[in-house]
Amino acid sequence: MGKNMLEPKVKPEGLSVRADELLGLSPELINSVRDSLREQNQTRAKMIVASLRASEFADLLQLLSPNLRRRLIECMGTDFDPQVLAELEGDIQEEISEQLGPVSLANMIIRLDIDDALELIITLRKDRQREILKQLPSELRNLVEVGLAFPKDSAGRLMGREFVAVPSFWTVDDTIKFLREADNLPNEFYEIFIVNPRHRPIGKVSLSNILRNEKPTKISSIMLSEIVTVPAIMDQEEVAFVFSQKDLVSVPVVDESYRLIGVITVDDVLDVIQEEAEEDIMRLGGVKSDDLYSAAFQTGRSRFSWLFLNLITAIVVSIVIGIFESTLEQIVMLAVLMPIVASMGGNAGTQTMTVAVRALATKELSDTNAMRVMGKEFLVGVYNGILFATLVGGVAWFWTNSLKIGGVMAVAMMITLIMAALSGMTIPLILQRAGTDPAIASGVVLTTITDIIAFGVFLGFATLLLL
Amino acid sequence: MGKNMLEPKVKPEGLSVRADELLGLSPELINSVRDSLREQNQTRAKMIVASLRASEFADLLQLLSPNLRRRLIECMGTDFDPQVLAELEGDIQEEISEQLGPVSLANMIIRLDIDDALELIITLRKDRQREILKQLPSELRNLVEVGLAFPKDSAGRLMGREFVAVPSFWTVDDTIKFLREADNLPNEFYEIFIVNPRHRPIGKVSLSNILRNEKPTKISSIMLSEIVTVPAIMDQEEVAFVFSQKDLVSVPVVDESYRLIGVITVDDVLDVIQEEAEEDIMRLGGVKSDDLYSAAFQTGRSRFSWLFLNLITAIVVSIVIGIFESTLEQIVMLAVLMPIVASMGGNAGTQTMTVAVRALATKELSDTNAMRVMGKEFLVGVYNGILFATLVGGVAWFWTNSLKIGGVMAVAMMITLIMAALSGMTIPLILQRAGTDPAIASGVVLTTITDIIAFGVFLGFATLLLL
Repeated sequence: MGKNMLEPKVKPEGLSVRADELLGLSPELINSVRDSLREQNQTRAKMIVASLRASEFADLLQLLSPNLRRRLIECMGTDFDPQVLAELEGDIQEEISEQLGPVSLANMIIRLDIDDALELIITLRKDRQREILKQLPSELRNLVEVGLAFPKDSAGRLMGREFVAVPSFWTVDDTIKFLREADNLPNEFYEIFIVNPRHRPIGKVSLSNILRNEKPTKISSIMLSEIVTVPAIMDQEEVAFVFSQKDLVSVPVVDESYRLIGVITVDDVLDVIQEEAEEDIMRLGGVKSDDLYSAAFQTGRSRFSWLFLNLITAIVVSIVIGIFESTLEQIVMLAVLMPIVASMGGNAGTQTMTVAVRALATKELSDTNAMRVMGKEFLVGVYNGILFATLVGGVAWFWTNSLKIGGVMAVAMMITLIMAALSGMTIPLILQRAGTDPAIASGVVLTTITDIIAFGVFLGFATLLLL
Repeated sequence: MGKNMLEPKVKPEGLSVRADELLGLSPELINSVRDSLREQNQTRAKMIVASLRASEFADLLQLLSPNLRRRLIECMGTDFDPQVLAELEGDIQEEISEQLGPVSLANMIIRLDIDDALELIITLRKDRQREILKQLPSELRNLVEVGLAFPKDSAGRLMGREFVAVPSFWTVDDTIKFLREADNLPNEFYEIFIVNPRHRPIGKVSLSNILRNEKPTKISSIMLSEIVTVPAIMDQEEVAFVFSQKDLVSVPVVDESYRLIGVITVDDVLDVIQEEAEEDIMRLGGVKSDDLYSAAFQTGRSRFSWLFLNLITAIVVSIVIGIFESTLEQIVMLAVLMPIVASMGGNAGTQTMTVAVRALATKELSDTNAMRVMGKEFLVGVYNGILFATLVGGVAWFWTNSLKIGGVMAVAMMITLIMAALSGMTIPLILQRAGTDPAIASGVVLTTITDIIAFGVFLGFATLLLL
């Protein structure tokens, strides 16, 4: 009897779904939704999307053209899950909010968790926000208004307002009874917080600890005391950093009097970490983070400013080259060779800059080790400077049959690579100190400097030695 | 009576620590550790670091020079927390493992969770691995060997082997009793998995649900059935994607017969998401991810290959420029202006490429919307092409006083920006299809193409129209 007869290759009925066998958003599903919408077959479209989770439905909407997107929303009518709205990217969220109109939008917001509701309302225009707030029941309106008062991307906006807090003199039994009877608990929670009479957090207990201790046990004897809390005004990036540093599953949020006002759980932080890393990647590339979903005109306009800045710096670089016009006139081969030096300088600088920008973001680079790292980058510059000076000098000598041009090329390469390494490290450090996000501007400043050094040194030495 | 008298500004005694008031790794702490180590004052150094968590101690080690690092490890002796070793970056982990020697290293590994132990052993050289394995007790050795058999970065390597699985016919009471008595449970867990007699997962219950239901309740009546599982060989990036798509806190890992063999929790995934985003950023910048901590020589060598590839492409670009040597000889001003076109092309292409690489990584770009996104990028290229053609043409006309040069510049800019947008989108798509990570090679391919287009079109038109 072979093993195959005992272990079926296909998933046995009633078992859980293995993630690699999930249907989810398959290309087939997307295409049949598209076809149904084009054929105005609303029933079929609704049937196909019925199996999707909110996040998958949101992805589907983002993949459709604006026209089909509008039709799909229309045919969902009141069956449209508000959670889908919460999962959408900014631009598309706004588009669909507009389509729904204030009344149905307000009805959807009522069904969302407060943190999702807040996030959604924030994306709306100010006048829209006021319209929606008017439609909300007063209790929810108050919660939203309190939330809107916290700064953008702060712990106060990220936190959930439902959590479990008990006094330290309770027993495990008291706590379990409370949990069975209370009705405004969060859907899922992993830890219980212990507060003093002023509602300030003094400890926490994980649910597994509650379950594993006998009923008469005092909470104070099993709680972890001196836990970490975050102030409501702390930036979400800092909150994410605290989570990964302290390996937390949830963290209590406190107001300026240290009172417990909310809880942030690890799933919220998962999104923050993804967003922040995304933001760094996008900024290094000179684009906005929801670029993919914006209309062509909007994308074009938002990329324009970055390219315009680059144009200014490129003209500055050209002016530097222009200084050596008469040198170029006498030895045209220099114009053929000079982009090699600039390209190598730009790339070497970008390598160092990427490491520096990322290390600043993760707090691995700071004033305490900046000098040591700078020393290392200098050595890296010297190492690759020597290697590439030899290589490039050789190539130039061979190509132009002039030892002098080879020599100029080698010296320029050496100086450029060392300066590129130092600039790649210094520029992000200076920008960070000046209070700018180093991911935004480092790239354009860096290549301007490496270009000026590369062209200036190469053409400068050529003028001195060759003419 | 002012509010200030009631609410002290300083943290009241006994309360939890607010994250922004955490001492953690302050520059003062780092400096006093450094001073103590330099003065060989081992007792003081040990005392200072005693308050640090494992992750903070790991960060501290990474901030110290190799020399002080060695001294700190020496003075910690057997008090060195194995968890610190687990938190270190690859290169430094290896360095300290070497320093500790096989016997103390094995003793530390015994005290780690199996997933951390595995991760640590994987960083070691093959011969070291064998040495360490020999030192481990046979049960742990077996676990490690099973783990090593899973592919790198797979769910099997990431998962914990300790989890709670119960049969569906148990009651809440049976489960609580089991939890109180069992002794090989994980430190922290948030969900209990339900398995059938063949140990295949058929559902899960959160701890909060166990706590909130009466004792005689059957687990089968409160469990969530048809849950998502991941196969042990699934890549960790895919696992992270499943977590964020399905908003999970933990996921059961199954073998090829669908049997439950481990559990991955959200805190492991937090690290994966950070690592993968880090990897993308680093690859786009042409560096390795532990670059910051490598020695200068190692860093220099690892960056060399990227720069060498760039040198080859820069030489190709120079050869293209070389074709137009006689044109440049007649109008030297072209050499001064040509870097502007190339720089704009490179930057516009990088913008599109960044969006494409990131959208491929997050699965927001796929075959089903590639054509639409491409169409949009074409429009963006045309939009910015027209604007910058006008701007740059005007600048060139004004500068050279030649309408013809201005015209050539404008046409070259227009064509380059459109081609840059299309290449920025196409190159990552082609690389992805060819099975390469688009983040690694897109940048160097892209700038080679935009440079060749920019210089080729500009000098080509100039040759046709100006001579």
